Amino acid sequence: EYKVLNLFICGIGTVGGKLIEQIRSQYDNLKEHSRLKLNVVGVASSHNAIYSRDGIDLAHYKEQLKASEPSSPEKLRDTILSMNIFNAVFVDCTASKEIAALYQSLLDHNVSIVAANKIAASSSYDDYARLKETALRRGIKFLFETNVGAGLPIIGTINDLRNSGDRILKIEAVLSGTLNYIFNKISANCPFSETVKCAKEEGYSEPDPRIDLSGTDVIRKIVILAREAGYRVEQEDVDKHLFVPDYFFTGSLEDFWKHLPELNADFEEKRKKLEAEGKRWRFIATMDHGKVSVALRDVTQDSPFYNLEGSNNIILLTTERYKEYPMLIQGYGAGASVTAAGVFANIISIANV
Amino acid sequence: EYKVLNLFICGIGTVGGKLIEQIRSQYDNLKEHSRLKLNVVGVASSHNAIYSRDGIDLAHYKEQLKASEPSSPEKLRDTILSMNIFNAVFVDCTASKEIAALYQSLLDHNVSIVAANKIAASSSYDDYARLKETALRRGIKFLFETNVGAGLPIIGTINDLRNSGDRILKIEAVLSGTLNYIFNKISANCPFSETVKCAKEEGYSEPDPRIDLSGTDVIRKIVILAREAGYRVEQEDVDKHLFVPDYFFTGSLEDFWKHLPELNADFEEKRKKLEAEGKRWRFIATMDHGKVSVALRDVTQDSPFYNLEGSNNIILLTTERYKEYPMLIQGYGAGASVTAAGVFANIISIANV
Repeated sequence: EYKVLNLFICGIGTVGGKLIEQIRSQYDNLKEHSRLKLNVVGVASSHNAIYSRDGIDLAHYKEQLKASEPSSPEKLRDTILSMNIFNAVFVDCTASKEIAALYQSLLDHNVSIVAANKIAASSSYDDYARLKETALRRGIKFLFETNVGAGLPIIGTINDLRNSGDRILKIEAVLSGTLNYIFNKISANCPFSETVKCAKEEGYSEPDPRIDLSGTDVIRKIVILAREAGYRVEQEDVDKHLFVPDYFFTGSLEDFWKHLPELNADFEEKRKKLEAEGKRWRFIATMDHGKVSVALRDVTQDSPFYNLEGSNNIILLTTERYKEYPMLIQGYGAGASVTAAGVFANIISIANV
Repeated sequence: EYKVLNLFICGIGTVGGKLIEQIRSQYDNLKEHSRLKLNVVGVASSHNAIYSRDGIDLAHYKEQLKASEPSSPEKLRDTILSMNIFNAVFVDCTASKEIAALYQSLLDHNVSIVAANKIAASSSYDDYARLKETALRRGIKFLFETNVGAGLPIIGTINDLRNSGDRILKIEAVLSGTLNYIFNKISANCPFSETVKCAKEEGYSEPDPRIDLSGTDVIRKIVILAREAGYRVEQEDVDKHLFVPDYFFTGSLEDFWKHLPELNADFEEKRKKLEAEGKRWRFIATMDHGKVSVALRDVTQDSPFYNLEGSNNIILLTTERYKEYPMLIQGYGAGASVTAAGVFANIISIANV
């Protein structure tokens, strides 16, 4: 009478931790109101892993992990495959390349994948296509909704539109909460280098903010959206118009922080001009009929990007049917709770309750 | 190797007609790329119906319908049940009360329902709850995403959020394309009565525009959203602040058109004041912790409702997790193609490909 999903959760950082909390608190509710049992049969941190066919006690998984044998990506994969469990879903809440490298063999053995990890969907197109094809052929799932916009319904919406025969013509989006925070924060009193420091201190940026400033994260996201929209795109195909000179990304992190204030005068000059024109800066990713770019752009007050507050994301989808006015989706594009909720939605969609 | 859905499509007006076109043009694509066969086994207009277990030829269904025996809602139901076909989905593209009344017995016989028709989900709460409960208990579906915002991903998103344990605290929305068109159109040169006439002539409003002006359609939609958000709400519970006096809704349609210009002077006076204050009118539906209202409101330039163009819809979801900044979804909220696409997405979700 119940549907059952058997989950292997990999990564117990902020997103994985929140996901386990959500599964624990929703267990009874889903069982009663959706006739779905979410059985967590494995939990792995970067160095340890625990397993139980009957379900792990989610109230005490951390203690159990600490007391467990050391693990590795290969051990993890081998154990999952040897357990040979039905309705299995591997949930990747890491940012690890080694974990992403396990997907193909897991899918080959009928384990569905739900990934918060962006690496697989944004690396080589052929690998991405092979993962999707494997899942389709085996009637299982490879889902990664939270790769773009965290819990916002973006990839699923693109898939729905395309399934009904619509064509995605153009995507324009602010996909970096960090960069939007920075360009909302910058002012006469808060120079560029200071905004970057604030973004780090308030937890918006990566510990090394160059990962955000280099556009790497945004490039991954727009590549994933372009692919899901039906275009064959690689990260190298993305046309980049950044706002920090390339040499800032090559030295040490200490050098980076030391030299960052050198950019302030130039930024302030441009900012004053921008302000006088009533414009704002937004770091916008664009996919236009398969051509992909990321760039810092000036937007005017009538742009939907202009009022994008805080670290929010926004996505405009122009399609054959949403043409004069694109479809617009906006909200938090990062954060552990909303990302975990997006992962959760992907998991539930596999059960199709 | 293929999943199969057997569809009974009821209603071949603008939405049903577009849906059949979309199914026809996507058939090969879905078969090849999603391993899904969409088999249309029945098509019904308001007076006729045709059936074929092997699939109806969608290129010639109209001729076949014309040549077919007369039908009725009861005959339709009896034929569907007697065909006793597996993976059956009844797709309601009508606005008929009689057709909505068939859902319960169809669900009782394991036929899933996808409804563009708003009547079932917005009529008595107990009936709505019983339909949902029946579908859940039988492991089939009762879906109605297009009841609100046409093809915009609203109801599915609310369900996803709640499944992960989020709570919907507040919904604020412009849900009537017609009314938004009217309040975008009104100006010194285009008085209120003229905007209503334009809305009718350009096909935005119902043939009897009082259905839009009375807020009936918006009330249905916000009731559905409130219910999906987890609150027990009836249409009678909705607090109404309309902008056309009640007596306009009681007489004949001729009287309505004749007297409508009497409202122009009052509207123009208020409009001038509004314009001087830099505000705009929006007809906003609100659900706040279960309390539901619809009202014509003034919005300022910093409101996300202010720039809502043409006949677009917008929905803001404030939840426990999307709190400081709500999730925002915006786009066409009506139109045959986008509504049919939303129905299509619901159908595909049943196959869970």
